[in-house]
Amino acid sequence: MKFNNRNVWISEKAKIGDNVRIGDNTTIYDGVEIGDNSIIADNVVIGEPQNSYYNDESYKNPKTIIGPNSLVRSYSIIYAGSTFGRNLQTGHRVVIREETSIGDYSSIGSFGDIQGYSKIGDYCRFQSNIVIAQYSEIGNYVFMYPYVILTNDPLPPSNLCKGPIIGDFCQIATHSVILPSVRIGVHSLVGANSTVSKDVADYSFVVGSPAKKIKDVREIISKEDGEPQYPWPLRFKRGMPWEQIGFDKWKAIKNLD
Amino acid sequence: MKFNNRNVWISEKAKIGDNVRIGDNTTIYDGVEIGDNSIIADNVVIGEPQNSYYNDESYKNPKTIIGPNSLVRSYSIIYAGSTFGRNLQTGHRVVIREETSIGDYSSIGSFGDIQGYSKIGDYCRFQSNIVIAQYSEIGNYVFMYPYVILTNDPLPPSNLCKGPIIGDFCQIATHSVILPSVRIGVHSLVGANSTVSKDVADYSFVVGSPAKKIKDVREIISKEDGEPQYPWPLRFKRGMPWEQIGFDKWKAIKNLD
Amino acid sequence: MKFNNRNVWISEKAKIGDNVRIGDNTTIYDGVEIGDNSIIADNVVIGEPQNSYYNDESYKNPKTIIGPNSLVRSYSIIYAGSTFGRNLQTGHRVVIREETSIGDYSSIGSFGDIQGYSKIGDYCRFQSNIVIAQYSEIGNYVFMYPYVILTNDPLPPSNLCKGPIIGDFCQIATHSVILPSVRIGVHSLVGANSTVSKDVADYSFVVGSPAKKIKDVREIISKEDGEPQYPWPLRFKRGMPWEQIGFDKWKAIKNLD
Repeated sequence: MKFNNRNVWISEKAKIGDNVRIGDNTTIYDGVEIGDNSIIADNVVIGEPQNSYYNDESYKNPKTIIGPNSLVRSYSIIYAGSTFGRNLQTGHRVVIREETSIGDYSSIGSFGDIQGYSKIGDYCRFQSNIVIAQYSEIGNYVFMYPYVILTNDPLPPSNLCKGPIIGDFCQIATHSVILPSVRIGVHSLVGANSTVSKDVADYSFVVGSPAKKIKDVREIISKEDGEPQYPWPLRFKRGMPWEQIGFDKWKAIKNLD
Repeated sequence: MKFNNRNVWISEKAKIGDNVRIGDNTTIYDGVEIGDNSIIADNVVIGEPQNSYYNDESYKNPKTIIGPNSLVRSYSIIYAGSTFGRNLQTGHRVVIREETSIGDYSSIGSFGDIQGYSKIGDYCRFQSNIVIAQYSEIGNYVFMYPYVILTNDPLPPSNLCKGPIIGDFCQIATHSVILPSVRIGVHSLVGANSTVSKDVADYSFVVGSPAKKIKDVREIISKEDGEPQYPWPLRFKRGMPWEQIGFDKWKAIKNLD
Repeated sequence: MKFNNRNVWISEKAKIGDNVRIGDNTTIYDGVEIGDNSIIADNVVIGEPQNSYYNDESYKNPKTIIGPNSLVRSYSIIYAGSTFGRNLQTGHRVVIREETSIGDYSSIGSFGDIQGYSKIGDYCRFQSNIVIAQYSEIGNYVFMYPYVILTNDPLPPSNLCKGPIIGDFCQIATHSVILPSVRIGVHSLVGANSTVSKDVADYSFVVGSPAKKIKDVREIISKEDGEPQYPWPLRFKRGMPWEQIGFDKWKAIKNLD
């Protein structure tokens, strides 16, 4: 049904890997490199020229690298000048601006708005409608739920600009706002509709506006079976690198504590 | 101005009713059935193949049924495998995933994100930017305002997955979050920017994070005329099935209490 | 790379100024006037017919005026019947409905949803994902951050419809909701994730749900240098009309107090 080569435009200065499928009405600009076996769906724009393109006649599109086995869903716009690891997945209509770096096996849900100049690790899963302000740093295995916002301007409008720093394994529930330069420790859980205004220690469960620590996440019990729910990788493995061997063994191999 | 048949692609395996208008740059995939007198605007995708399409060579697009007199606005994406009643209306850029069932005369505002595997009744009106998590159940005559989110994972990430159950005639004000498996009784009102974490009795007005019951909705007085504002169907009729005869008569005919 | 005249449709009843660039896959309907030196990027719709177009055979598209030096980014939809001053900028995928008036040098970020029948002044900067309900009034030099919502229905669903009135120089931080008909005084600051339910005096810093006044904005001190941060135009000038001469001189010339 798809991939009929209808109204497709691919720059001669783009490098398309082996076995890549490119959807109808899609545009691939100069300097884009797409890894083998990737799928770029319909109505997608990869390598969108940065703003200076419109005014600077000497503008040259910087490289945009999409790793192998990636799937970019329809109507997404990815600016020139970003780098993505292998097995990237995006939902529909994401906008990812320049100078974004995303690791391997991460996914960005539909309507996601990644404003550029940020670093996102491996195996992150962002659900729909997240906003990542410029100069944010997000670790590995971080999950965010719809309408989470990372901000970067402490006293708007200022010329300061410093995003949050989110530790590995964090879970940020829906509609939460992380204020500028806040550092959230590893394995923390932010409850729904929270405003996180201060640094959060490792393994904290915080909630509210402003968010306060309720307890250690390791004290949260699953209603399903009465066992501790966190650290979540002990219970949740789907698509994670510890899927086959379990989190404890995997950690030992990786030398994590 | 519209409907110039420019860059349109319609599968031979789709059934298009009488007097259907299909906008430019629109794509209709296999197995789609569009009822008479419907309008599918520009840049729309109907019957978007499900994810397994990309990897499974035996994939066959399931049926997608859109009732008569519907209007799907531009840039919307509707996945294969959902069913919509008559007089569906969508705004621009909605995404509706598979296994969604929506009744008659319901509307989904622009940027709506309906994640599939959910049931939505008749005469619902969702304004822009709502998110409906998988496995949600929404009754009839339910109105939701911008950025309302229904969630489904109580201890993220878990393998549990149970959306809220929203009773008939509920009103959910802007930016509110309904937590997983919460049941909201009929005729309730959720105030703006609330987080509903517990079941809500019929006819309740709740607000806050976590939401607390303030009063019975029938105690809320309109500033306009000093009369009770709720149950709202006594005062609001536009486009509703009681528009001609009034809510009380309509209820009597329908045998509702 | 862009502007290859691929799949472009421009009505003969549109007026395109000198040196205007129009992107691929873009549609310009009847009655649109685009000022000189503007850029309408790819996949944009300008002059989208209003809803009555679909049913009224005598429908005629009203005028849509976009001032000179404007930049409308890709996938945006601007309805017929709105007027924009010079140097308008939009992000990607904005939807701007009919009867919207926006002044000079204002910008609307990606995914913005402006529902029409509203007035927005000069030099406003709205970041991504804002929602402006019908019948809102927004002054000049107003900045809004992601997911700010202006609402207009006090007891939903009612037939009342009155948006907020936002004074000049206001700053509304991310995820905040402004309730219907609320008036926010000039130079006020609304903190993140707030719900503003009552009128706000000039120069107030309010925060919370419902929002409460914390202090006068002029008492807020920058951590950067220990100086007052507000009124913000004393410290922030980028792109503002006082950029060259400073806010105090500019105010004196303008006869503002």
